[in-house]
Formats: sequence, structure tokens, C-alpha cells
Amino acid sequence: MVLTVYTLFQWMLKLKNKHLLGLKDFPREDIHTILDMAFKFREVLDRPIKKVPSLQGVTVVNLFFENSTRTRISFELAQKRLSCDTVNFSASSSSLKKGESFKDTSQNIEAMKIDAVVMRHPTPGAPMHLSKFIDAVIINAGDGTHEHPTQAILDMMSLKEVFGTLNKLKIGIIGDIAHSRVALSNIYGLKAMGAEVTLCGPPNLIPKNIEDMGVKINYNIDEVMDWADALNVLRIQRERMGLGLIPSNREYRSKFGITKKRILNHKKEIIIMHPGPINRGVEIDSVVADSDQAIILDQVLNGVASRMAILYLFCGESPGKDTK
Amino acid sequence: MVLTVYTLFQWMLKLKNKHLLGLKDFPREDIHTILDMAFKFREVLDRPIKKVPSLQGVTVVNLFFENSTRTRISFELAQKRLSCDTVNFSASSSSLKKGESFKDTSQNIEAMKIDAVVMRHPTPGAPMHLSKFIDAVIINAGDGTHEHPTQAILDMMSLKEVFGTLNKLKIGIIGDIAHSRVALSNIYGLKAMGAEVTLCGPPNLIPKNIEDMGVKINYNIDEVMDWADALNVLRIQRERMGLGLIPSNREYRSKFGITKKRILNHKKEIIIMHPGPINRGVEIDSVVADSDQAIILDQVLNGVASRMAILYLFCGESPGKDTK
Amino acid sequence: MVLTVYTLFQWMLKLKNKHLLGLKDFPREDIHTILDMAFKFREVLDRPIKKVPSLQGVTVVNLFFENSTRTRISFELAQKRLSCDTVNFSASSSSLKKGESFKDTSQNIEAMKIDAVVMRHPTPGAPMHLSKFIDAVIINAGDGTHEHPTQAILDMMSLKEVFGTLNKLKIGIIGDIAHSRVALSNIYGLKAMGAEVTLCGPPNLIPKNIEDMGVKINYNIDEVMDWADALNVLRIQRERMGLGLIPSNREYRSKFGITKKRILNHKKEIIIMHPGPINRGVEIDSVVADSDQAIILDQVLNGVASRMAILYLFCGESPGKDTK
Repeated sequence: MVLTVYTLFQWMLKLKNKHLLGLKDFPREDIHTILDMAFKFREVLDRPIKKVPSLQGVTVVNLFFENSTRTRISFELAQKRLSCDTVNFSASSSSLKKGESFKDTSQNIEAMKIDAVVMRHPTPGAPMHLSKFIDAVIINAGDGTHEHPTQAILDMMSLKEVFGTLNKLKIGIIGDIAHSRVALSNIYGLKAMGAEVTLCGPPNLIPKNIEDMGVKINYNIDEVMDWADALNVLRIQRERMGLGLIPSNREYRSKFGITKKRILNHKKEIIIMHPGPINRGVEIDSVVADSDQAIILDQVLNGVASRMAILYLFCGESPGKDTK
Repeated sequence: MVLTVYTLFQWMLKLKNKHLLGLKDFPREDIHTILDMAFKFREVLDRPIKKVPSLQGVTVVNLFFENSTRTRISFELAQKRLSCDTVNFSASSSSLKKGESFKDTSQNIEAMKIDAVVMRHPTPGAPMHLSKFIDAVIINAGDGTHEHPTQAILDMMSLKEVFGTLNKLKIGIIGDIAHSRVALSNIYGLKAMGAEVTLCGPPNLIPKNIEDMGVKINYNIDEVMDWADALNVLRIQRERMGLGLIPSNREYRSKFGITKKRILNHKKEIIIMHPGPINRGVEIDSVVADSDQAIILDQVLNGVASRMAILYLFCGESPGKDTK
Repeated sequence: MVLTVYTLFQWMLKLKNKHLLGLKDFPREDIHTILDMAFKFREVLDRPIKKVPSLQGVTVVNLFFENSTRTRISFELAQKRLSCDTVNFSASSSSLKKGESFKDTSQNIEAMKIDAVVMRHPTPGAPMHLSKFIDAVIINAGDGTHEHPTQAILDMMSLKEVFGTLNKLKIGIIGDIAHSRVALSNIYGLKAMGAEVTLCGPPNLIPKNIEDMGVKINYNIDEVMDWADALNVLRIQRERMGLGLIPSNREYRSKFGITKKRILNHKKEIIIMHPGPINRGVEIDSVVADSDQAIILDQVLNGVASRMAILYLFCGESPGKDTK
């Protein structure tokens, strides 16, 4: 009997996908499973001892081909708090300089009996490509302008924390949609969970055919603020643009910035999210980012909890998992 | 009864300050508490198993905005031997490049439920500045020309190991006092503990009003050697000078160098300290640095013990502390 | 009685050398001991939980003065799976930039009560040099064109896995023998274990007097393939050459490359090894490197097992060793 319940429990935790490459076509029930588990780990993070032995003996390699402070530290903390063994590998110290192929590097790392690879890469599709060569679980930590699924999971967790459900929730995503992996993963995830999404930003930074994804476009930020329960304010990535796509920080702020004035002009207590790092005074005013409406630092904490849940669930099929 | 004694013990360990930003105005009794605990951890380091579970579940971030071999490794070893979880963050891999503010980076790191931050920064006051934004314990690992309190603690521990007490001890600090965070923290600490301090070095590298701190100045190294029980010989930091403040290595050595000849000219077995790295043949002769009078490598070992004590005591108020 | 057997067991594990600086004059029985232990750790790597508490409390510093992806990760995994505490130190973050001497850096690191140092350095003999200054166990992870003993151990382990013994085994080592630390360590090890070795490569890249080591030279790759049980195919290190020693990749491949055509021309199922990283299409064809005859990825896994055995046995005399 105990075994039956336990087996049922295990079966309920079984995800449909082996890897977390993106949220496109990712099953709704699996997002539910991850979010439920993430809230459990969030409780762990509120305990005096924030460490659990769940993934003892599991080895994870963080394969970062692009600099990242918060995502790398967030994953590393998630791993250490699950008692994983973690090895960091960054492009600058890599054999790739010696002309070794991506495939060879990956297969060599896996041959050392790695259970999972967390990968950030500037090229869209690199984690998918990697999944063809190796058997280890692959978690996409951001691949170019493609997807950033763990960010979308933590964003959804943060919304669920405030609103209790994602179903029928009205979310505005504001900024450079065309170059944002955060936006794309959020759209996939939020639509799967029954939320309504409206995109808002400079017309040249919103792909025309994106409405086919079931989202709306509205170039008027004030109208979007009247409609939305929450805004996900994207970072203006100056390093990705530089092509005169945005006339100036000042003009961007006046047309799309979440300014103190705009917040005051809306009666509704709209929730403000931002994946960070923030350009204060450009896409968002400091006073707004630091206000009670902003849940930006909750997102950061939920990021650790979400990544603990993701590692726990995706490495659950690995033989190293402590299932007790 | 047991609980009462235990509570008393806890109360005795309670430090007055939340952070270790510097030794200026740092309570004498707290220095005593840290030194006593450091000697306990020194015993741990002499055991076959040099690891204790004291800070299991506690997360420390090493936030280094300046290169440092020995200080970083010393802290990292202290953390691992206390069973902390450690995450390293260096400026070169940081979001700061993306233009994120120091405040945002810090708040984001803290939002991940960090218990303590060990910080090295080229700007005097940076750890103090950080303490205004975040709730985690902050340990200053050197901030520009300001303070380096953990170095002063390990220096005092090394002196206490030799002499039994710091009270009435006669310490000469030799070198570029004006630019030395080691000198400043040592002066604060040694004066608090009742030691007498005489500074010696090129006149243009000793601040004139520094006598207000209760120290003496004597430009004659031989007189200082006649007087002192121990010398703390500072590194000539060529990278901080380059302005013709010191005519040449040779001239510096002839006037202030702790040479073999000078040591032989003094009957007294004076103790020689150096915070490292050593410029052999400039501020100190190789034969002196490697002699039995020099306790330079003891300082290195005491550095690990001191940092274990500091982390243990300052993270003691954190909920993650194992108080059993 | 139990104690007697245990003491006998301990005595049997006692290696003659304190350090693993190279395989020159390394006792044959010690290679046996290491290989036997490596196969035990290989079993551990096949378990669900790949971690053992054998070296808990032991501190190892990885001192890498040269970039290395796979060797560094292999050692780091070996250390973590033995429950060591590991500190990484790379030349770029080092005090060496401040002009500190190699000796001072080393002595300082050791003063922190390090049990072992794993060292990679571009200068032949650097680990030997280090062993004169410090008491910690030193494991050479590659010193210039001199030796790479852990690579030779893993190569021998991989051969033993296939053939059961190294005695009388016929091994061809193919490539730039003159600049290869892998070749030199393999020659020492294989000869000690009773294998026969034939070297093959461009005449100007094979030292003339190398036959004094008890090996044969044959410039005809096809004859070597007819003779050998296994080939160890070295990487053509373009970064070490650049002096017109090899006319072109194409000419090298035609004369010494392990091509698909050459493999098909030989009836015997010859075993193919490569230390990596591979120049596909130069010293070896892709289809050969990925074939069942190639044991290149087994070598990678055996590398972790070998390094676990080496760390376990060489740190066994250290007081930190868990001998229970």
C-alpha cells in the first residue's frame, strides 16, 4: 500500500520531456508539477538550514558560453542547496580555443558521468543541438534570442505567488520583444497556463506575425496598464541594438517607460516584474522598481526555488537521484 | 541548568557589531572573543580532519572586485572547513559590465538568501556602503587604502601566539603607512588591545596627523628595532605608487629594509611579520624572511583560523547557524 | 586478527613515492596498485551514487598555470567524488602578477594546511621544483613537454580494461613524440609494465636517442598497424609547432593519419586511443574516432577513476585520510 502510494507519487512527478530546452509545446501539466515543487523548495529557502540532501551524488556541469552573474549564481546556489556536486566551465577557459568541436567537448564532459548540463550559449538552439550528442539532462539557461525557460518558470511562480492562479491573468510584456528570450519563453508558458498576454513596445521591435501565438499587440503603454494585472518589463539591451532602433533613452522612457507618473495615473495596483538587470530611469523608474508593487526581488528568490525544482524533477530519472 | 550555561555561553559570544567593516571603534572585548575563538579553530586545523559542521547550510558569497590570491583562498578554505556553501563572484564575470548598479547587484545577490558577503573592493568604504542596502553579514576583505580588518586580526593572533598577550607589546609598523589598509587596521586593533605602536617609513608616506591615533613616529629604523618586540613589515606596493615617492628599491632597502645586517646588529630576538606577498631584497632580505624570527607562514595559517572564527561568530546570529 | 589483515592491507597500498611527478623510475608494483584501485573506483562511477567519503576533510588545491578543460574538470570531479575540499587557483588570478615568487606562492598555499597540490605548468620540472619547497603531496597534471603521468595511468587502465594485461602488449604511439608529455609518460609506464612500444611519426619529431628507452621506431604507419594491438594517436599540437616541421595537415594525414581507408586495409581489430582534444580529419578520421574500435570516451571515464585512485593512494599517508 505504501509502495503503491509512493509509486503513484513518483508517477505524478514524471515529466514528459527529458530536457528543459524551452517552453514551446511544453506540457501544461508539467509546468504545474514544476511550480508546485518550486513552492515546496521556496519553503526550504525560508528555513534556517536551506540545504537538503535530495540530489547527493548527482553531478551537474554549468556550461556557460556567455557571461551571466545572476543566472549562474542562482543555478549554483540551487545546486549546492540540493547537495549536488557542481563543476563550472566557462568558455574562456575552454578547449574550444584549441579548435576542439562543440560535439567533442560535450561528449567528453558527459563521458565523465555527468547527470545534467546547465547551458547558456549565444547561439539559438545550442542546447537542442547538444541534446543530440549526449544523454545527460540538459537545462537551457538562455540561448541567444531564443528561449530562457527557467526565467519564465520563475516569472510564473512569482505571479502565482501573488495571484494564486495564472488562469485568465492579464499580463503585459513591455519592451524589445523581438530580441528577448525572456519574452518568448514567457509567452509560451503563460499561454499554456491560460493567461492572456499583451505585448507592448516600439513597433519595429515587435514581430508582426507574433499574434499567431495567441497574444495581442498594443503600442499604447497606458492602455496596457489599464488592462493588465501585471507587467513584465524587459531590459532595454543596449548591447544587442546599437542600430538606431531606439532614438534615445529619453524617448523610450517617455513612450514605454514605467514611470512614477504613469503608475500614479492608474488607480489599479498593478504588479511590476523585471528579469534584471534594471536600467533605472530608462525602462523603469527607480521609485517604481523599489516600490511595493514591484516583486523584482521576489523573482530572484523564486529563481533559486524554481531552479531547485527543475533540477530535482529533471534529474529525478537519473540513477543518482535520492528518491527517499 | 544546562540551558542556562548554554545561554550564557551564547551571550558571551554575542558581538556588538553586525558586520566586520573595520577595526575603528571596534570593541576590545569583541577582539578578545574573536581571538579566543581563532585559537580554538587553530586547534581544529591541527587535527587530521580539519573540517567541522558548524556553518552547514550557511551560504557565503565571496564578492571580489580586486584580484587576490591568498585572501580569497584563505577565506574559501575557512568557509569550506566550516561546511559553508560558498559561491565566488569576481568583477570580471559580473553584470557590472552591463551597467548594473552596485546596489542592484548586491540586492539581487542577497535576495537569493545569502547569509554573509565577504567583500574586497578597490574603493574605500565600499563594504560600509553595501551594508546600507542589504541585511546579510558583511566581512571587509580589504577596501582600497582604508581597512583590512581580518588581516589585523590574524596579525594580532600571531603576536598573541608568540607573546601570550598584546597588552604593553611594542610593535613597529614599517613602510608605506599612508597607502596601507593593513597598517590602519593594525593600528586600530593594537591600540584597542593595549599595545604600543611606532610607525617608521619614508616621511612622505607617513601621514602627519596620524599621531592623533595614539601612535609614535620614528624615521630611524634602527631605533625602532632597538625598541620593538615585533615588526610588521609592509609590502612596498609599487603598483600603488609610481610617482617617484620612493627613489629606488636600493635606497628604500638601505634606509628601511629589514636586512640581514640590521638583524645581526640587534641583540634582541625581534619577531618579524609580513602580510605578503614579499618583495624579497627590498623591504626585507630573503634570509630574514626565512629565518626563525619570522612568523610569516604562521600568519598565513592563523589567517585561516581567524577567518573561521570571524565567519563563525558573525554568522552566529544568522538563522542558519548550527548552534548545537 | 582483523587488525593484522587490515595492517597488511594498508601496507600493500603503501606507495614508494610521496609525489606523482612522473612515471620515470616509477615502481612497477605501484602502477599495479594504482590500476587495481582505479578499477575499484570505476565501479563506484557506475553506481547510482558516485560519491564516497574517502577523503573527507582532505584539502586539495588545483594549481593550473596553463589552460585545461578536461584535465581540470576530471581532477575536480575526482576530488568531489572523494569528498575532498577543493580550491581552484589559476595563474590569471594569481599574485604572480604582483611579482611574487613561485616559491612564496607555494609556501603560502601550503601554510594553509593543504594536503595535496595538483599542478599543471608550462615549464618542464615545475612540479619537481615545487616538491622541494613544500610538504604537501604533489600530483603532476602535465609539465610542459616533460610528463603527464595521470594521462599515462588512465591510458594503461584503458588498455588493461580491453586486454586484461599490459604484459607483452604491442602499443604504437603515433605523432609528434618529441613534444609530447603524453608519449613520454606512456613510454615509461608501458615499459615498466612489460609492454612493447613502437613509435611512429615524422622523423624530425622523433628524438633519435629515444631507442635507448627500450622502444622501437618505425616511420611506416601501415607496418605499425600490422604489428600493434593498440594505437595511441597523439594530437598534432599546432600551437607548439608553427615552424614548418609539418608541411600541411593534408600531408600529415596522408603519411600518419589513422584514416578510414587504413583501418579497412587491416584485418585486425586494432584498438584506437587518443588523449584528446581530437583534430578530426588530421591525425584521425572522424569515422574512426567514433567507431567501436576507438576507446576514446572510455579513456575519459577512466581518467576520473584513475585520478580518484591516485588522490586516494597518494593522500593516504596524509593525516586527513579516512582510513576506516
